[in-house]
Amino acid sequence: MTDPRLYCSNPLRASAEIRLGRDESHYLVSVMRRKAGDKVRLFNPQDGEWSADIAAADRKGVSLRLEKKLRAAQRVPDLDLLFAPVKKARTDFIVEKATELGVRRIRPVLTRRTIADKVRLDRLSALVREAAEQTERFDLPEIFEAEKLESVLDGWPADRVLFFCDEAGDAMPMAEALRGHETGKAAILTGPEGGFTSEERDYIRSLPIAIPVSLGPRILRADTAAAAALTLWQSCCGDWSGGAQARE
Amino acid sequence: MTDPRLYCSNPLRASAEIRLGRDESHYLVSVMRRKAGDKVRLFNPQDGEWSADIAAADRKGVSLRLEKKLRAAQRVPDLDLLFAPVKKARTDFIVEKATELGVRRIRPVLTRRTIADKVRLDRLSALVREAAEQTERFDLPEIFEAEKLESVLDGWPADRVLFFCDEAGDAMPMAEALRGHETGKAAILTGPEGGFTSEERDYIRSLPIAIPVSLGPRILRADTAAAAALTLWQSCCGDWSGGAQARE
Repeated sequence: MTDPRLYCSNPLRASAEIRLGRDESHYLVSVMRRKAGDKVRLFNPQDGEWSADIAAADRKGVSLRLEKKLRAAQRVPDLDLLFAPVKKARTDFIVEKATELGVRRIRPVLTRRTIADKVRLDRLSALVREAAEQTERFDLPEIFEAEKLESVLDGWPADRVLFFCDEAGDAMPMAEALRGHETGKAAILTGPEGGFTSEERDYIRSLPIAIPVSLGPRILRADTAAAAALTLWQSCCGDWSGGAQARE
Repeated sequence: MTDPRLYCSNPLRASAEIRLGRDESHYLVSVMRRKAGDKVRLFNPQDGEWSADIAAADRKGVSLRLEKKLRAAQRVPDLDLLFAPVKKARTDFIVEKATELGVRRIRPVLTRRTIADKVRLDRLSALVREAAEQTERFDLPEIFEAEKLESVLDGWPADRVLFFCDEAGDAMPMAEALRGHETGKAAILTGPEGGFTSEERDYIRSLPIAIPVSLGPRILRADTAAAAALTLWQSCCGDWSGGAQARE
């Protein structure tokens, strides 16, 4: 069994003592069944990943003493996911997968056909944190408040390519479209169940920075499209191609 | 709104009359709120996709009259997914995504660390059918009974490359490993939460037909790994690269 891995915003230094909050203490003691003398791992994007000993685990909580640095922090590539929120379980899935598939920012965008439960940032933040702990990244992706698609695109920066997953037709296969964009900032935009309206498609396609891409001959659900597009980007332009070193 | 799309094993011919079973009648009338005069689409891998009129929709069920052929059937590429079943919701997810991502066969394999609810083929068959209807493919992937990994690999055919998603280290990035395997039969093997044991890894790696592949520097959950590997295969070797024509 590998040692439990927890995100910790405190500075991580040799011999530092850290008291965990209630939720994390409960998780370690009651869920993971750890006790004094066991080891955990702590990480954050500034200090990397550290091993720590459980110094005390009682009803008042868990205290840790940091031992040594295990790994230096690495950043995920500079990739954003813009997605139209869908039903709760599938939105959760998209957010979890975006974290595992190494995006820096998760931006829910509201489109004409977005029919979604309210996006609960507190719930998604907990989900992102758990996914980051599990997937062994060092940072937590930043989750934005849901915003109208038009507002997001109106202020779109000229140096961030937007790969627009356009299932309605004649777009270039995504793997082909990625060639020539191996470096630089990027974002992926996926639509709601039911797709974008034709007005939305025309508008997005009119942006010079937007590149429509296709994800094959079948209709993909919104969550599948997001996972597939992130996979192709990481494989072609991100940190999947060889070393674990993320580019800046 | 697009017309509902239903798998139908009956021969599809112009003017044929088809009576739907109870579940499908219920789905059309009570869920999709369709009535006599509305249209549906029927499909199967022999006859392609047809439009049909709802001739009658009453308490006894729905009868359809076939109108015209809309699309000729296309096969998905000759790709299998072998996966270690995980918890129910994530197994469902893997099966749904495998259907959307165009595999022909879905084979649950039992590994040493497989801790899973029993694989219920009847439930998965319903799930596969619904996913095939939604994703606009023409066939339903075949679902196998769960079988021990060793038994499956013992009888492995020499003409089907097995891409083995090996998170434990030094494998080649999958996109790279796929080069040179653009044609021919293939399978993808993903492990359970917790991964394969080192004995299992050694055994799989000893097979001449197995190619270990890596899916980036982060740890992916079992369901994410399956979706990511299927995406990369379809993009590089399958039917995502240009036309919708599947190769045989």
